[in-house]
Amino acid sequence: MRSVVVGGGAWGAGFATVLRACDHDVSVATRQTIDDAPYEDADLIAVAVPSRAFRDALTHLRGQAPVLILTKGLDPVSGDRLSTLVRDRPVAVLSGPNMAEEIEDWLPAATVVASEDEALAASLQQAINSPLFRVYVNSDLIGVELCGAAKNVIALACGAVDGLGLGDNAKAALITRGLVEMARLGEACGAEPETFAGLAGLGDLVVTCWHPSGRNRRAGELIAQGMTPDEAVAEIGHVVEGLTTAPVLRDLAHRLKVEMPITEGVCAVLSGTPIHELAASLMVRPPVQE
Amino acid sequence: MRSVVVGGGAWGAGFATVLRACDHDVSVATRQTIDDAPYEDADLIAVAVPSRAFRDALTHLRGQAPVLILTKGLDPVSGDRLSTLVRDRPVAVLSGPNMAEEIEDWLPAATVVASEDEALAASLQQAINSPLFRVYVNSDLIGVELCGAAKNVIALACGAVDGLGLGDNAKAALITRGLVEMARLGEACGAEPETFAGLAGLGDLVVTCWHPSGRNRRAGELIAQGMTPDEAVAEIGHVVEGLTTAPVLRDLAHRLKVEMPITEGVCAVLSGTPIHELAASLMVRPPVQE
Repeated sequence: MRSVVVGGGAWGAGFATVLRACDHDVSVATRQTIDDAPYEDADLIAVAVPSRAFRDALTHLRGQAPVLILTKGLDPVSGDRLSTLVRDRPVAVLSGPNMAEEIEDWLPAATVVASEDEALAASLQQAINSPLFRVYVNSDLIGVELCGAAKNVIALACGAVDGLGLGDNAKAALITRGLVEMARLGEACGAEPETFAGLAGLGDLVVTCWHPSGRNRRAGELIAQGMTPDEAVAEIGHVVEGLTTAPVLRDLAHRLKVEMPITEGVCAVLSGTPIHELAASLMVRPPVQE
Repeated sequence: MRSVVVGGGAWGAGFATVLRACDHDVSVATRQTIDDAPYEDADLIAVAVPSRAFRDALTHLRGQAPVLILTKGLDPVSGDRLSTLVRDRPVAVLSGPNMAEEIEDWLPAATVVASEDEALAASLQQAINSPLFRVYVNSDLIGVELCGAAKNVIALACGAVDGLGLGDNAKAALITRGLVEMARLGEACGAEPETFAGLAGLGDLVVTCWHPSGRNRRAGELIAQGMTPDEAVAEIGHVVEGLTTAPVLRDLAHRLKVEMPITEGVCAVLSGTPIHELAASLMVRPPVQE
């Protein structure tokens, strides 16, 4: 099988490793080489560019091969799920607890492939599954995409808990409420609740919020310790998807009239609200039913 | 309010701190002083003994005060939930992501109080809630108790992932599947699915599986690195509830004909199955729908 991975970042490189383990003939296209890749010969094009570059990247592809979306985010222009931008070819999404550096170290992982085209999802599962990279099929494309976008925003908040030194009990409570607000958005968008309890939901959320080198968690930590978002990105040296996604997700929640208090809090801090004020206000709310 | 905390361990001491923050007049009864505590004067008796000592501890109580169960486990004699052993007085359960050392350090936490007696749960919420210890009411007593018992068994498995060096992607996948099997048992016992996605379920599970000093996680890590369960307990120096609970939970699952593959794996390793064999067998199963 011939595959092109579009995107020169850590996950693009990690996923190329996954494909080579399945005996794919893999070429990687970066921003500089995106127009020169052998798309016409490819059986699969995996796209792992940042969400803000996704719309443009599609305009460079040629041929008819299916696109497998590795990017986790929403289209910042329209607020839509990224798969809705792919109109000229079959499309699927891959998402799950897949920290790139562990994949490159050949540590085991599990993931989900979702598509409205069941035959495509099943064929991708066969093409990508290996003993160290377990691929499960999920038919809920909407839910899988929303999970991948929203979990980075919750991870910013969890990083802030780390940065403020509030401890793991508080972080666990925040993850729990974070998954509740993710699932509430999903329900409004027609997603399946089970997806949020699965690998692309809970699974990816916990690793993103807890793994020490997760970029979104780390950015939240640095911002809580006093950096601006731009300074945090400069320190991390990579794209931090949650910073792009947070306002897009909040606007989507407003349009659908879904309450997402953690996402609102993240956006408030990114817009300059002092984080200590926000944390203090959350502590004095009256207790209620869970 | 006058409260007695029964149990001389870390969580008994931590919970006494919580009660004092709410201006309770608190006395702590240890194994040595359990017969001398002022139960007749108490408005509340919080029991935080190990699950294997719970049945006996009840026989030492006097007076009519409600019992709030802090112990997380099942009765090893009958396999029943601990609240079913309390027949002579009102009973409620408290459970959530509440690592004791963080509570003692005055870090914020959230928890759940559950009882079949709604008025009792509401009055306990009022009596225990404070800005740093947020108490939510949950009406699903069965689910809350099963969560508290089962999460320690999943944490043993997650500790084994750490001990084998399999990485955080694998641990996140294991947590996800662990919560699925916990909820499957809950369904068979008449619990509410929402409880497993809440603070006592997901919230407590993630902190137990990820916090570095969690006893159950640590025991799993040590056993995976070659210690026997007894050696691991000696190294940790405290009761490890998951070791008591694992076979009791497995037997309950067998009686109810519920599949709990992670719990089965934990019991197999505790009975001497080499852990590398078990891990390898999980990797080669055919991929399926999520």
